[in-house]
Amino acid sequence: MSDLPTLLKDLVVANRILAHENVVDAYGHVSIRHPDRPDRFFLARSRSPELVTVDDLVEFDLDCNPIDQRGRAIYIERPIHGGVYQARPDVHSVIHNHSHEVIPFSISKDTRLRPVFHTAAPMGAEIPIWDIRTKFGDTNLLVTTMAQGHDLARTLGCGSVALMRGHGCAVAAATLYDAVHTAVFLQDNAKLQAAGLRLGAITYLSDGEIAEASRNPQDRNSRAWEYWARRCGADKL
Amino acid sequence: MSDLPTLLKDLVVANRILAHENVVDAYGHVSIRHPDRPDRFFLARSRSPELVTVDDLVEFDLDCNPIDQRGRAIYIERPIHGGVYQARPDVHSVIHNHSHEVIPFSISKDTRLRPVFHTAAPMGAEIPIWDIRTKFGDTNLLVTTMAQGHDLARTLGCGSVALMRGHGCAVAAATLYDAVHTAVFLQDNAKLQAAGLRLGAITYLSDGEIAEASRNPQDRNSRAWEYWARRCGADKL
Amino acid sequence: MSDLPTLLKDLVVANRILAHENVVDAYGHVSIRHPDRPDRFFLARSRSPELVTVDDLVEFDLDCNPIDQRGRAIYIERPIHGGVYQARPDVHSVIHNHSHEVIPFSISKDTRLRPVFHTAAPMGAEIPIWDIRTKFGDTNLLVTTMAQGHDLARTLGCGSVALMRGHGCAVAAATLYDAVHTAVFLQDNAKLQAAGLRLGAITYLSDGEIAEASRNPQDRNSRAWEYWARRCGADKL
Amino acid sequence: MSDLPTLLKDLVVANRILAHENVVDAYGHVSIRHPDRPDRFFLARSRSPELVTVDDLVEFDLDCNPIDQRGRAIYIERPIHGGVYQARPDVHSVIHNHSHEVIPFSISKDTRLRPVFHTAAPMGAEIPIWDIRTKFGDTNLLVTTMAQGHDLARTLGCGSVALMRGHGCAVAAATLYDAVHTAVFLQDNAKLQAAGLRLGAITYLSDGEIAEASRNPQDRNSRAWEYWARRCGADKL
Repeated sequence: MSDLPTLLKDLVVANRILAHENVVDAYGHVSIRHPDRPDRFFLARSRSPELVTVDDLVEFDLDCNPIDQRGRAIYIERPIHGGVYQARPDVHSVIHNHSHEVIPFSISKDTRLRPVFHTAAPMGAEIPIWDIRTKFGDTNLLVTTMAQGHDLARTLGCGSVALMRGHGCAVAAATLYDAVHTAVFLQDNAKLQAAGLRLGAITYLSDGEIAEASRNPQDRNSRAWEYWARRCGADKL
Repeated sequence: MSDLPTLLKDLVVANRILAHENVVDAYGHVSIRHPDRPDRFFLARSRSPELVTVDDLVEFDLDCNPIDQRGRAIYIERPIHGGVYQARPDVHSVIHNHSHEVIPFSISKDTRLRPVFHTAAPMGAEIPIWDIRTKFGDTNLLVTTMAQGHDLARTLGCGSVALMRGHGCAVAAATLYDAVHTAVFLQDNAKLQAAGLRLGAITYLSDGEIAEASRNPQDRNSRAWEYWARRCGADKL
Repeated sequence: MSDLPTLLKDLVVANRILAHENVVDAYGHVSIRHPDRPDRFFLARSRSPELVTVDDLVEFDLDCNPIDQRGRAIYIERPIHGGVYQARPDVHSVIHNHSHEVIPFSISKDTRLRPVFHTAAPMGAEIPIWDIRTKFGDTNLLVTTMAQGHDLARTLGCGSVALMRGHGCAVAAATLYDAVHTAVFLQDNAKLQAAGLRLGAITYLSDGEIAEASRNPQDRNSRAWEYWARRCGADKL
Repeated sequence: MSDLPTLLKDLVVANRILAHENVVDAYGHVSIRHPDRPDRFFLARSRSPELVTVDDLVEFDLDCNPIDQRGRAIYIERPIHGGVYQARPDVHSVIHNHSHEVIPFSISKDTRLRPVFHTAAPMGAEIPIWDIRTKFGDTNLLVTTMAQGHDLARTLGCGSVALMRGHGCAVAAATLYDAVHTAVFLQDNAKLQAAGLRLGAITYLSDGEIAEASRNPQDRNSRAWEYWARRCGADKL
């Protein structure tokens, strides 16, 4: 048996970290797959990540039905999570965010997001852009049905990141720690790539470098996790 | 009867939120129409929004005369509020700000502000720019007369936002909560649109998407309101 | 007799405000002319503005000799202040800063800083750039002699602001409150003008608007001063 | 004998300063050469700089072997430090960082980083870019071997700064205080140069100005050091 209470506590820490690092704001969310029941996942009730506590965590099945809702309001966009967990048994954590650094790349017709520095390598060489309009026409852009969640998961494929046009992105990873690491450095990469392009042509990481620099799994003892948790005060939780 | 004390308290919270989110700074203001007397509105005395308390709120008629001034200095630009309330019975809250993200679009001859992501949809598809110089010649750019307030309201038309050239913008909404939401995400949209344009051509929201994504009225229990109020400490007021 | 103790306390507040608003950082300084002795001015000892207290204030004659140094290290660049006070009897406060928004305009060969929004109008229509190299050749760019201070003052002329190439700027005003106001909004204008230009051609304030919007002297009861002092905690000093 | 305890305490302060000024984040590190044993240097154990305490400091020989590891995890990239100390007897402090302002210049094919304002002069006129791929092919970009450290040191030559493509930079200086000063103002220069270039052509410091403005060694009583230490609370350590 895994240590579920520790993992749930770290899910709360992840909410706080993502808020403090400006990856999420009023909106956005992060989930983990149940470590002992791969047909379940945990996600906060409908609340801004900075405010989430352990009591706010709700368990869902992979069709996004709450197991024990207890009257709590829940995120309408949980199909982002359920869709990815159904398609990807290797994924144990999913993050959805509206990062201000990332969104410009989701609406750009001319410039694709691509790793320019080593810590961002886990985002992968090719970042697809999912446009909800392609299949579902004019919507409010929210991923509210399992059909939409499945379609987003298909665009994500076997990768780590999919941008969502005019909306944000979805990040998928083997662990919660990897998901947070990828989401933070995806944001940094977007910022650095945009700044680099304003100076002229730039050198991207090579495919070999992306592969080499992606082989560093994170855990709860990682240097970055300790740093981010301390910065947002979540080490005191 | 409406719950006026709660609404006035929320007007104070709105002042703090807008300051903390950098929508307003030393200058800028937010008002609400009196819920029981549509010929009256409430606005703070002349004070930076971050510092406003309930005791600073002053009641005005729609010609911007104070009902009970008690010696308090009042904003010279209250005709922004009175002008909009007179022209728009559907509007119950008005915000004026000098957001640093928005002003560049107010002076641009080449680029129009337009929604690029879903939470900014309530700003509307077309954002007019009001230039005080067109009708009033060289001024200090402040909206100090009812004639100027009426003219600004005419430019606003039936929309949510009007930019004010070389000055800032005016936001109008059905509720205080919608006005704050629109003002914050208007600012985010300006930032994201400018960043997107630096990467090349961009995809804007379609008219259908703007319509769909605008149908989500905010209230004092909304996720964003809770988040913003907590961030600026206004939940403790 | 003026209220010197209050004015000196406000000089400390001005140091804190300028630091908190990022107009100054480790370097930069602000001075006032002695209200009763126009041949004297007050400036802090050599210390970063954020840390300045009343005990750090030193009195100087207009040739920048300290009246009562008491062993305190003093800024090497005081000729910026002495030079302007000698040339401009109307000036009662001088600020020198390395604002990150302003410096890019000091090194640009193609783009001149000019007011784009109303609160920045007191900076004036034409902002000269002083290049120390023109008259003094290769130096460390610091204004360390009265000859350099006089030369800078000549470039400033009867204006409010002179940029200093590769270094920063000097701001001169009738009062301490006006100087701080001009320095903060000069910085905002630089940011907004640069952002506007990235969107294409922009509309600047007209000369008539600059004149109209410059007629609003600040004082210690002004809305902006109260706001800035509260934000940096200097209202508690 | 030097005052080693004071110097080690200042190394901790330097870690905090660099974190607070955003020169380093989760990653990055700063070292000093042992003042009495030039064949040794001090560097923190593997920990984010903001969290480093005196107990985290580890002594190394110049081949980067720990003298007294006591089970502590150590930075994998210590060859950056050992490589420079072996090649440069004049260097007594080395900083490695991933500054977000600096990295864009490390990946730019078209724009070279060069001093534009006086306090950045110690970075030097010509800033080389070291590309690990040139000699070592596809790697994870980390400097993990002494061969890589020696190669980086060769690119650094007798200068103060080398950019590392897609990674960050290395800063070398005669003292810890100079290294911190150079690293902070290198970052500021990158920001200001990029901003200046967006306005058109710019004026760089001349070689003579760079030489003149580099002759100002820092120490623990310097104005900037006092300011930075106070800002990050390290004056209370």
